[in-house]
Amino acid sequence: MGEKDGTQGGRPDGHERHEKDKESARLSTLLRLPDGDDIDLASYDARDTPAWQDGKTAGLAAIADMREDLADLQERLWAASTAGDRRRVLLILQGMDTSGKGGTVKHVAGMFNPAGCRVRAFKAPTHEENKHSFLWRIRRALPEAGEIGIFDRSHYEDVLVARVRELAPHREITRRYREINRFEESLADDGVTVLKCFLHISYDQQRRRLLRRLDNPAKHWKFSAGDIEDRALWPEYRKAYEIALERCSTPRAPWFVVPADRKWYRNWAIGTLLLEHLEALDPRYPKADFDVTEYRKLLLKSV
Amino acid sequence: MGEKDGTQGGRPDGHERHEKDKESARLSTLLRLPDGDDIDLASYDARDTPAWQDGKTAGLAAIADMREDLADLQERLWAASTAGDRRRVLLILQGMDTSGKGGTVKHVAGMFNPAGCRVRAFKAPTHEENKHSFLWRIRRALPEAGEIGIFDRSHYEDVLVARVRELAPHREITRRYREINRFEESLADDGVTVLKCFLHISYDQQRRRLLRRLDNPAKHWKFSAGDIEDRALWPEYRKAYEIALERCSTPRAPWFVVPADRKWYRNWAIGTLLLEHLEALDPRYPKADFDVTEYRKLLLKSV
Repeated sequence: MGEKDGTQGGRPDGHERHEKDKESARLSTLLRLPDGDDIDLASYDARDTPAWQDGKTAGLAAIADMREDLADLQERLWAASTAGDRRRVLLILQGMDTSGKGGTVKHVAGMFNPAGCRVRAFKAPTHEENKHSFLWRIRRALPEAGEIGIFDRSHYEDVLVARVRELAPHREITRRYREINRFEESLADDGVTVLKCFLHISYDQQRRRLLRRLDNPAKHWKFSAGDIEDRALWPEYRKAYEIALERCSTPRAPWFVVPADRKWYRNWAIGTLLLEHLEALDPRYPKADFDVTEYRKLLLKSV
Repeated sequence: MGEKDGTQGGRPDGHERHEKDKESARLSTLLRLPDGDDIDLASYDARDTPAWQDGKTAGLAAIADMREDLADLQERLWAASTAGDRRRVLLILQGMDTSGKGGTVKHVAGMFNPAGCRVRAFKAPTHEENKHSFLWRIRRALPEAGEIGIFDRSHYEDVLVARVRELAPHREITRRYREINRFEESLADDGVTVLKCFLHISYDQQRRRLLRRLDNPAKHWKFSAGDIEDRALWPEYRKAYEIALERCSTPRAPWFVVPADRKWYRNWAIGTLLLEHLEALDPRYPKADFDVTEYRKLLLKSV
C-alpha cells in the first residue's frame, strides 16, 4: 500500500503528464501579460480564442471534461491542508460590466466542491468597510489553507472605479498600486497562488449584452443606472485597466488577459488556467498518521 | 411586459403547480418529525426510501432533473434580495460520522450557483470560539439575504458531542436546548427558512463506510482516531440525538429524519426538501426600477 501512495487515485503516468504539461503550459504562456510592458488593450481581440481552434461545440465538451480533474485536484489540495499544507488558490476576476465575472463563478467555480470554495463578490464599500484601509475587507475574505477562493471584483476596484470616478486623490491611487504589489507578494509568500484574470470584452459586445438584459424582465435586477454611466466612461475605464495591469503584473502575481466576447471560450480558458495552476501545485493526499491494520481489526470487531 | 412578470421564466401553470405541490408536500410531511413526540430512532429504517419507489437509477436521474429548478429558484431568491427581500434558507446537516454530510454538500449544494451559497463546516471549537457563547460562531456564519446557507454540523454539536463527552455541565446542556429554540425562532422571524436534516445511518452501514475509507489510501485523510472512539459511543450518541431532536423540533424549525444508508436516496430527499421549501417561498424577480424604453434608446445610441 505504501508504494502505491505516490501514484494513487489515477494520476497520469510520466508520459501522459508530460504531454499534459506541454499542452496546458501553452495557455498560461499565451494569456499571461508580460511583466512591466506597456499595454494597449485595443491590440487584444476580445473575440479571439488563443490555444483553441476547434470551435464552440468542442469547447463546451472540453469544459465538461475538465470537471473531474478540477474536482480531483481540489480534493487533493483540501486533503493536503488537513496535514498542514498551507497552499490555496485565489482566482481574481475583473472586467467591465457584462464581461462575465458572475458567469465564470457560476460555470467554472460551479465545477468545484462548494465545501472547499470561498466565493466573494465585492460591491461598493459599505460604511464600515470605508472606515478601514482598502485591503481590510479583502484580507477578511481570503481563502484558507486548502481552499479555492474566488473574487468577483477585488481590491483592483480601488484603482479602477476609484481612479475613473475620482473617489480618492491621485496621489493615494498611485500609492495603492505599490501596496497591492506588496500585498500580493505577501500572499504568494504565504502559499497563495494568485491568479488574476482580466475578462476582456469589446464595446460592441457589451452593448449587445446590456440590450439582452433589457429585453428580458428576468434580468432587469442585474441592471442599474450605473451600467449606462460606466459605459459612457469606457475609454477612461480602459485606460485605468491598462495602468493597473501594467503596474500590477508581477512575476509572482501576473495578470492574464482572457478574451471574453465568447462565453464558452472564457469558461474554457479560466478553467484551463485553474487546472494548470493546480497541476503545478501537485497537491498530494497525506499518508495515514495511524495504524491502518490496527484500525481495521477494531472495526471488524465492532459488529 | 408588465402582465408577463408574474409568469415569466417558465413557471408552471396553476394545474402543474398544484400537482407539484401535492407530490412534494408528501416528502416534507413524511420526513418531518412531529413536534414534541418521544423519539425512538431504532424505529426508523435507515435503508428506507420514503416517497420513492422507483429504485436507484431513476433516483439518480431525478436528482439530475432537479438541478435546473433548484438553480432557478436560487437565482430568484437572490434577485429578490437585491430589491430588499430578506429571505434566505439555512440547511443544517447533522449525523454520525460517515452519514454523508460532506457528500450532501458536494452533490446537493453543488447544484446551486456558488455565488449565492455559503457553506460552513463546524469542527471542534477553536480557542477563540471557546471564549464566546456557543452560538457566537454560528451567528457569524449565517446566510445573508438571498443566500442558501449550508452547515455541515452546527450548534447542535454543543448538545451532542458536548453531552456525550461531558464537555459542559449537565445543567448547561439543558439550558442550551431552550437557547437553541429561541435562536432558531429568531432566525425564522428574520426571514430564515431553517431546514434541519438528521442523516440517519445504521451502525452496520457506518462500519462498511469506515472500512471502505481504510481500504482506500486516498481517503485516509478523512479518518481519525476519534471516529473509532465515537463509534464505541454509538448508543450514547443515539440517545443524545433523540433528546436533541425531541426538544428542538419546533413548528417553525422542525427536524427532518432522512434515511441515509443509501446515498442516492439521501441526495434525492434533501434536494427535494430544498426544492419544496424554495417553492413555498416562491421568490420573484423584482420589477425594473428604471425606464426600460429610455435605457434601450440610450444603449442603441452608444455605438
